[in-house]
Amino acid sequence: MTISSRGFASDNCSGVHPKIMKELEAANSAHVPSYGEDPFTAEAVAKIREHFGDGCDVYFVWGGTAANILGLRTVTRSYNAVICPESAHINSSECCAPETNIGCKLISAPVADGKMTVELLGALTDADTDAHHAQPKVVSISQATEKGTVYSIDEIKALSGFAHEKGLLLHMDGARLSNAAVSLGCGFREMTFDAGVDILSFGGTKNGLMFGEAVIFRDRSHEHEFKYIRMQGLQLYSKMRFAAAQFSAMLDEGLAFDIARHSNMMASVLGRLLSEIPGITLTQKVESNAVFAIIPEHCLERLRERFDFFVFDEKRSEVRLMCSFDTTEEDVRDFAGIARAVLESSPQ
Amino acid sequence: MTISSRGFASDNCSGVHPKIMKELEAANSAHVPSYGEDPFTAEAVAKIREHFGDGCDVYFVWGGTAANILGLRTVTRSYNAVICPESAHINSSECCAPETNIGCKLISAPVADGKMTVELLGALTDADTDAHHAQPKVVSISQATEKGTVYSIDEIKALSGFAHEKGLLLHMDGARLSNAAVSLGCGFREMTFDAGVDILSFGGTKNGLMFGEAVIFRDRSHEHEFKYIRMQGLQLYSKMRFAAAQFSAMLDEGLAFDIARHSNMMASVLGRLLSEIPGITLTQKVESNAVFAIIPEHCLERLRERFDFFVFDEKRSEVRLMCSFDTTEEDVRDFAGIARAVLESSPQ
Amino acid sequence: MTISSRGFASDNCSGVHPKIMKELEAANSAHVPSYGEDPFTAEAVAKIREHFGDGCDVYFVWGGTAANILGLRTVTRSYNAVICPESAHINSSECCAPETNIGCKLISAPVADGKMTVELLGALTDADTDAHHAQPKVVSISQATEKGTVYSIDEIKALSGFAHEKGLLLHMDGARLSNAAVSLGCGFREMTFDAGVDILSFGGTKNGLMFGEAVIFRDRSHEHEFKYIRMQGLQLYSKMRFAAAQFSAMLDEGLAFDIARHSNMMASVLGRLLSEIPGITLTQKVESNAVFAIIPEHCLERLRERFDFFVFDEKRSEVRLMCSFDTTEEDVRDFAGIARAVLESSPQ
Amino acid sequence: MTISSRGFASDNCSGVHPKIMKELEAANSAHVPSYGEDPFTAEAVAKIREHFGDGCDVYFVWGGTAANILGLRTVTRSYNAVICPESAHINSSECCAPETNIGCKLISAPVADGKMTVELLGALTDADTDAHHAQPKVVSISQATEKGTVYSIDEIKALSGFAHEKGLLLHMDGARLSNAAVSLGCGFREMTFDAGVDILSFGGTKNGLMFGEAVIFRDRSHEHEFKYIRMQGLQLYSKMRFAAAQFSAMLDEGLAFDIARHSNMMASVLGRLLSEIPGITLTQKVESNAVFAIIPEHCLERLRERFDFFVFDEKRSEVRLMCSFDTTEEDVRDFAGIARAVLESSPQ
Repeated sequence: MTISSRGFASDNCSGVHPKIMKELEAANSAHVPSYGEDPFTAEAVAKIREHFGDGCDVYFVWGGTAANILGLRTVTRSYNAVICPESAHINSSECCAPETNIGCKLISAPVADGKMTVELLGALTDADTDAHHAQPKVVSISQATEKGTVYSIDEIKALSGFAHEKGLLLHMDGARLSNAAVSLGCGFREMTFDAGVDILSFGGTKNGLMFGEAVIFRDRSHEHEFKYIRMQGLQLYSKMRFAAAQFSAMLDEGLAFDIARHSNMMASVLGRLLSEIPGITLTQKVESNAVFAIIPEHCLERLRERFDFFVFDEKRSEVRLMCSFDTTEEDVRDFAGIARAVLESSPQ
Repeated sequence: MTISSRGFASDNCSGVHPKIMKELEAANSAHVPSYGEDPFTAEAVAKIREHFGDGCDVYFVWGGTAANILGLRTVTRSYNAVICPESAHINSSECCAPETNIGCKLISAPVADGKMTVELLGALTDADTDAHHAQPKVVSISQATEKGTVYSIDEIKALSGFAHEKGLLLHMDGARLSNAAVSLGCGFREMTFDAGVDILSFGGTKNGLMFGEAVIFRDRSHEHEFKYIRMQGLQLYSKMRFAAAQFSAMLDEGLAFDIARHSNMMASVLGRLLSEIPGITLTQKVESNAVFAIIPEHCLERLRERFDFFVFDEKRSEVRLMCSFDTTEEDVRDFAGIARAVLESSPQ
Repeated sequence: MTISSRGFASDNCSGVHPKIMKELEAANSAHVPSYGEDPFTAEAVAKIREHFGDGCDVYFVWGGTAANILGLRTVTRSYNAVICPESAHINSSECCAPETNIGCKLISAPVADGKMTVELLGALTDADTDAHHAQPKVVSISQATEKGTVYSIDEIKALSGFAHEKGLLLHMDGARLSNAAVSLGCGFREMTFDAGVDILSFGGTKNGLMFGEAVIFRDRSHEHEFKYIRMQGLQLYSKMRFAAAQFSAMLDEGLAFDIARHSNMMASVLGRLLSEIPGITLTQKVESNAVFAIIPEHCLERLRERFDFFVFDEKRSEVRLMCSFDTTEEDVRDFAGIARAVLESSPQ
Repeated sequence: MTISSRGFASDNCSGVHPKIMKELEAANSAHVPSYGEDPFTAEAVAKIREHFGDGCDVYFVWGGTAANILGLRTVTRSYNAVICPESAHINSSECCAPETNIGCKLISAPVADGKMTVELLGALTDADTDAHHAQPKVVSISQATEKGTVYSIDEIKALSGFAHEKGLLLHMDGARLSNAAVSLGCGFREMTFDAGVDILSFGGTKNGLMFGEAVIFRDRSHEHEFKYIRMQGLQLYSKMRFAAAQFSAMLDEGLAFDIARHSNMMASVLGRLLSEIPGITLTQKVESNAVFAIIPEHCLERLRERFDFFVFDEKRSEVRLMCSFDTTEEDVRDFAGIARAVLESSPQ
């Protein structure tokens, strides 16, 4: 393995942003209380509240799946159903952790662009209250979606409006929330709690952190129980300061947005370059740091010699290309250059 | 809060050992495959196998409770019972995570020194095979124990012998395994798999790591299922290299033992100094990095002004004092000095 | 409520067949060991083995959902997936009890006639072994299906052949197994274990019993664990003899088949009569004791004055009409007669 | 096996009281709505409310373990603890079904007579609110206890008073509630909801029913969720009328009390006769339908030739002798007679 290589396999194949690493070092001195009773955690929570609203309730966990599961578990019981797009990470990529940890049923439907709609929601939430039927309790959407698309604020408001009217809560998987914010040109709050989100997973790992996600509730009504749910969910980090310090760094001087702006930009350039190559078709709008494209198989073989990436749908030779904080314009141009060269010399 | 202070509250109140931090920085370059398919993980697994045996099966997780739960979950079904001392971390400090995540019953009995015995095991494992009774499947012991004591190799062999004869497995919670190894003056393998341990939690966080524990199975018979159990247990770390690199560093040039030797030594000095002070009584043998002592309440008040520590049993004014990699002899002498001064001036 | 009325709402709205009730009285004498250690249970198990094969393993439980869940739970772990038609009882009518009790994910697809096909199975079982994906372990089919259709023996063999080749097990929800056997004109064994079924729910309640279902495994490999799984699944019946005695009665002198033959016949007549009425369309083949039909809403209103039945799909005015052991030809003719009269006078 | 024999093994080794069987036959006519929407269920619920209070919420389930688990599950979350005597059925005889189905921890202590005390409760409920500790939520007591003893109304009030003051609920396992009522000479309500009980398992099976228990909540605050919990707990009985009809019969003309009075009386006579035999020692007060006694092993051998019974503690040759609705004075005198004869001829 070439340790110096960069690819497009995932934004979690990259390492840690230098400013984050520096903050980890800065946090490494003396003793502080463990399990979140330390000043680093207090500071990070305060910074998050500046961005998301004073009344919100903030908890750090290690991983993104954990953030989703624990947030959802807090507001559901085992007989509930969670409504989501089929492509939702909770449905497609968490090895039935929601079913195992919550007991609930996921009710989903395929959507080409990864985005739930009010129309679809109407069909998916029509369970009666008969004892034989799982009772919908939460709608879960991802912002940005697993397809790289981004909900507009109006779309989120429409979904939360519908959900609340039906007595449902709106959960947002924000593993790539910063990318979405940059894409919409708005702050975190406008796109989340101000738009009706009730429970949020706010991602760090895919935006340059070593690890760490935050579960954020709209208000403090779950304060008395979440600490136990986090402990039982195997996510109570003893040296919590090292999760918290990264979030503080990420929110300092707009670093979260800088990183996301860069990775979005790289995806945008990559998408544009690929779209100009005959034989390549983009399959999703490039709205965050992902590019989905159909690239002929013989071309993929050549690209693989140089770059790591993920074949999303083998049947139609569709790949997913993720950009990170350290993706360079050179990486992007090289990738597109190889693709163009192969396809121009042997279009088939 | 004085950010420069050091106390005795827990070995997880300390930060990260400088050599570990350096390795984290070294691992931070370029892209590598996520979820453990990277060369850092391969290297760390190889190093662990050097210490624990070629045939063992190694997985990294974030936290110590997770290591225990996932190891136990792999070898049990919901109708099983896990036998342990009442003071076991899994029984006393994991918010019924074993019951919630495994479904099992913990069958325990109080033992003053935190150590399971063969005699006690006989009484705790006598369930018949009637459908009304949880079926014992695993004996779980902690090395070092939560009371700071350490099992001898012969004691472990006696327990594993008894367990295996009964068809039970032996699990070891090794959150402080390095402290125990130094205490016994032996290698990891002699004290674990060579002594009959079947499943091991090998701790890093309490021995100077930022985070990270390893679940190690005696052999590879659970390879086909543990990866899913870890994912569902919310412990599959995308940027796995940063857990692995810390373990590599910890096993390089005996760092694990150096750290443990230091913290054990500090506890030893602290124990000796306190035992010489009239009015203070040690309540456990000092065999690892913990000191348990009864210190009069009015003395604790004064000590609290300078040091953080944990009152283990308020009724008898018993405290637990943990030493870390960065505990200094000055810290220890200052603590004992204050205690002596208070008790000499006002013994009551 | 007219206590003497009979309707078509469900085969569990009927009571207990007189011969079954008589056997319950016969079993009610003296004391016998509880929890299945009694001679009634031994006798019933022996009779079931006569029908299903000497090597099979038989357990009585109270309810049909329980039979499905406990059978599936025995052969799965929480990271597994169960593949089934969308209309499967386990997916549509058990309030996510599989997800809650097993932890697993149900992977399903809509099929108009309620029957899984090998083609569909190919698409539904294509998960890779990546840790992010639930691992298919069991294919579950219902015989007869929830749509009243019946798999041929060849269809079952094709499904079990495909499943076994993929390393999957075949589970059969036989809540209406007797109806299917009569429909195919075969014995229980030909259609189940001889056709490759691995785990079976053998239904009693819907075939004239007061309560009681049997979980039957192809062989005795789960003997050491099922008793605990049944206890934990809240299905260990202390006075087991009263479940067993009903099964003995049901298998005596072909009573199971007599009951099923009658209810199938009544459905057949009802289906034929309705199909001849202009304005009514059958939506499923009538192969067991169910009739699915689209009947205009204004006609349903009139039928409701006399009969209870279940509107299966309100949008298209589709009803499900179930026949029971005590459904009479008069009931059937009256139903059809009213429908014909209404539709001839006002075709709408 | 002599099918006509009666023993003292358990009150669930007996069959069905003739009046109950007669009511089952009476309920067996025509069709009624399933799943509890029938008039038999409405009638039974009304009768139970007459005895337990107008405001209570009543649900029928099949078994006693199920009644306990589902009642407790309704009011707890996985991080809670349930406090009970060590001998509680939920702790000793349900194969860790509470841990598996609720996720909770049972916190218990041994009590010789099976009765919880306020003093003991103080010690068992002293958990702090730290995230590492399971949070006590319910105190569970059995009335009558598993040792045959009975709480006085004042004792129950003291326990509920303490529990409520601590923010805990009081659960009562009333598998033998009728025996306790007769023993105290009071009605059901005085001993349950009027004495501060919050959740009750009201047993039928051990008091002459074929099957059937009721979960009764003090008020209707769980109405919106219990139906799903019962379904997921595999206890929603389709032909519910046959559970309900038995409860109606049991509450008609004081049948519940008549049965319990008889079995209590038989136990009382048996206890008195045994206590008069040199070499036999009663180990518990005889307050309900159980007799606990130490009977020398060689005497047990002879008794076993004629009677079935349960050796409760092999080490001290302690047996449990349960009386049922059909235990006769002749049975009791024969048992005592054999014991006396053996011990007089060979005291050792």
